Amino acid sequence: MSKARIETFSDGVFAIAATLLVLEIKVPSAAGHSLSHELGRLWPSFAAFVVSFFTIGIIWVNHHALYDRIKECTRTLMFLNLFLLLWVSFIPFPTALVAGYLRDGTAAGQHLAAAFYAATFLLMGLTFFLSYYYAGRKKLLSEELTLVQVRALLRRNAVGQLGYAAAIGVAFVSAPASLAISGLVAAYYVHPGRAASKAGG
Amino acid sequence: MSKARIETFSDGVFAIAATLLVLEIKVPSAAGHSLSHELGRLWPSFAAFVVSFFTIGIIWVNHHALYDRIKECTRTLMFLNLFLLLWVSFIPFPTALVAGYLRDGTAAGQHLAAAFYAATFLLMGLTFFLSYYYAGRKKLLSEELTLVQVRALLRRNAVGQLGYAAAIGVAFVSAPASLAISGLVAAYYVHPGRAASKAGG
Amino acid sequence: MSKARIETFSDGVFAIAATLLVLEIKVPSAAGHSLSHELGRLWPSFAAFVVSFFTIGIIWVNHHALYDRIKECTRTLMFLNLFLLLWVSFIPFPTALVAGYLRDGTAAGQHLAAAFYAATFLLMGLTFFLSYYYAGRKKLLSEELTLVQVRALLRRNAVGQLGYAAAIGVAFVSAPASLAISGLVAAYYVHPGRAASKAGG
Amino acid sequence: MSKARIETFSDGVFAIAATLLVLEIKVPSAAGHSLSHELGRLWPSFAAFVVSFFTIGIIWVNHHALYDRIKECTRTLMFLNLFLLLWVSFIPFPTALVAGYLRDGTAAGQHLAAAFYAATFLLMGLTFFLSYYYAGRKKLLSEELTLVQVRALLRRNAVGQLGYAAAIGVAFVSAPASLAISGLVAAYYVHPGRAASKAGG
Repeated sequence: MSKARIETFSDGVFAIAATLLVLEIKVPSAAGHSLSHELGRLWPSFAAFVVSFFTIGIIWVNHHALYDRIKECTRTLMFLNLFLLLWVSFIPFPTALVAGYLRDGTAAGQHLAAAFYAATFLLMGLTFFLSYYYAGRKKLLSEELTLVQVRALLRRNAVGQLGYAAAIGVAFVSAPASLAISGLVAAYYVHPGRAASKAGG
Repeated sequence: MSKARIETFSDGVFAIAATLLVLEIKVPSAAGHSLSHELGRLWPSFAAFVVSFFTIGIIWVNHHALYDRIKECTRTLMFLNLFLLLWVSFIPFPTALVAGYLRDGTAAGQHLAAAFYAATFLLMGLTFFLSYYYAGRKKLLSEELTLVQVRALLRRNAVGQLGYAAAIGVAFVSAPASLAISGLVAAYYVHPGRAASKAGG
Repeated sequence: MSKARIETFSDGVFAIAATLLVLEIKVPSAAGHSLSHELGRLWPSFAAFVVSFFTIGIIWVNHHALYDRIKECTRTLMFLNLFLLLWVSFIPFPTALVAGYLRDGTAAGQHLAAAFYAATFLLMGLTFFLSYYYAGRKKLLSEELTLVQVRALLRRNAVGQLGYAAAIGVAFVSAPASLAISGLVAAYYVHPGRAASKAGG
Repeated sequence: MSKARIETFSDGVFAIAATLLVLEIKVPSAAGHSLSHELGRLWPSFAAFVVSFFTIGIIWVNHHALYDRIKECTRTLMFLNLFLLLWVSFIPFPTALVAGYLRDGTAAGQHLAAAFYAATFLLMGLTFFLSYYYAGRKKLLSEELTLVQVRALLRRNAVGQLGYAAAIGVAFVSAPASLAISGLVAAYYVHPGRAASKAGG
């Protein structure tokens, strides 16, 4: 299984998942309130759309940074990658869930929906880390990472995972705040970091 | 992050967004009026489908014209590109919105929906211009644009942005006229322009 | 605009349109009749799915046969191609329409839906022929077609167009027969023809 | 028709079908029971999503193993491939069907839905085998398979087909058990086998 194939298939899943997100934003009924009121009520859909879109964008960037360094693909790596893509392709569901419950749900429903949303990102991040860890351990990277690079990678990864863990906890206090934290994690990764910028964290 | 990757991912989003548009055209209930009557009532869906499809086609053409000239990608450019793709992937929502309100909405709803639709294109166009501006400013283009080319690009870009701005204004008078203006902007870009034909405006 | 780009984008639209077809097959309500009865009632959805899928497959094959021969792309050819893709991406709608009306529609609705379905294929075929005609006329093909090849192409194309025209006419007598004719046209193209096998008709 | 084209188109269909699966998981109504209760009731959707996703992943891996060995594509092979992709693109329907009936269906409906789901995989597997058989028979493979490789391929293929056949039978006793068997078949293929690991079974 060539690296190019895995990348093409993965890029397809990333692009499709990102583009399917819009389907969760339902056109309000024309028979209801005024459209300006209805569009205002859709704010959770817009917010979740933006956060999920950039989160998929970030994981796509990091995915390429990882595969650019990989010199050899094993069957195990391929299935770890499928596992990552499972989470990516799942994202439209928690996105629709958190948007729907922020609009219409009870407080308890909002909290759980926001926690479910952040938990999906946490699990996706852990699965990504697992690919990186496996590739490093099995010497599949084109060059050994220096200790400085490994530390930078771990630090950047930890920020993401801790951010999502915090988002899960905060979800039970305030669902919108939890969504905001997930958005901040994506914003954090926009910045390349220092040594990490070369290690693709 | 190689240029080829960005192009592949972007092409995926363009193709998927264009193909998802059809999902907004709902099959009329077989229990209702005669089918010919129902198909007639769907004209806003057909019109919005065609305008959005060609608008995505045009931005895809212009996107390639830009990236053909780019010799180096930076992390900032990549995120500007993600921002552009956010708008592209969002298009199916305003398309469904304007179609639904042109069919069933109140006059006020129709006006706002058409303005929202044109505003999405305006913001998409501005984001695209931002990528071009950034790439030129940061010397990422393979060759410097001549003053003539820069002027042609600016002029062509201005036509698009002014067209969409006009469509927003006209929306509050006549929603179908606003939709027609957005369609005319797409038709304008089919023509390559003169100097611009090489600069990809 | 390079040929490779057009092909990649087109392949994306073909693959997505073909895969979106399944969304028109709605899971029957678990609260209704027995599932075997419900699956039986879905036969128009299954039939239309198969016919549309292979029709997209055929046009994809013919599209590649055309572009394999093209040595140069012009802006006009690119927009003719976008026009073809517009029809391709539209196919899920008439597919859902004919399936829905064959199941639940009045006789008049069934006839019109089947005619609408075949008319979409006829228009798609004509648009494809237009690309071929333009490319030949503008000397964009890598080698001139011999008179024998041109005749074979025209004959094969005529079979398809006449088949779809017949399907439109028959639709007003029997909608299932019309659907069957569209299926037969796809089956006809599976066979490569003689001289046409090289000219990609 | 070049091999690369077939692979790109196929990869597109695989990636889209896998990513469309999520659309079958409907966000529960915010007005109903507590969200934790509703998410619990969605277990068949989650389970069917995971099984279908990995089944598509496996067939994608096997598809590449086959095409890596193919040195020449014929028109017949291309249509056999389209036939395989028909099944792949169809998977979201039986996935939604089995999930919906496991949640809300009568016992009879559950049994039939699970059998329908496994039968789709069985037919997809047979179609894949047909491609392999045809390619071997027509000497389209880059090198002849040794007898040991042929046996390993047949054995691995038989395990899959017998597994799906068993899943069809078991469906009429227990729908969840049938779903579990389909999942086990996917898990079986994660392991590369011995000689088969090179023959891509």
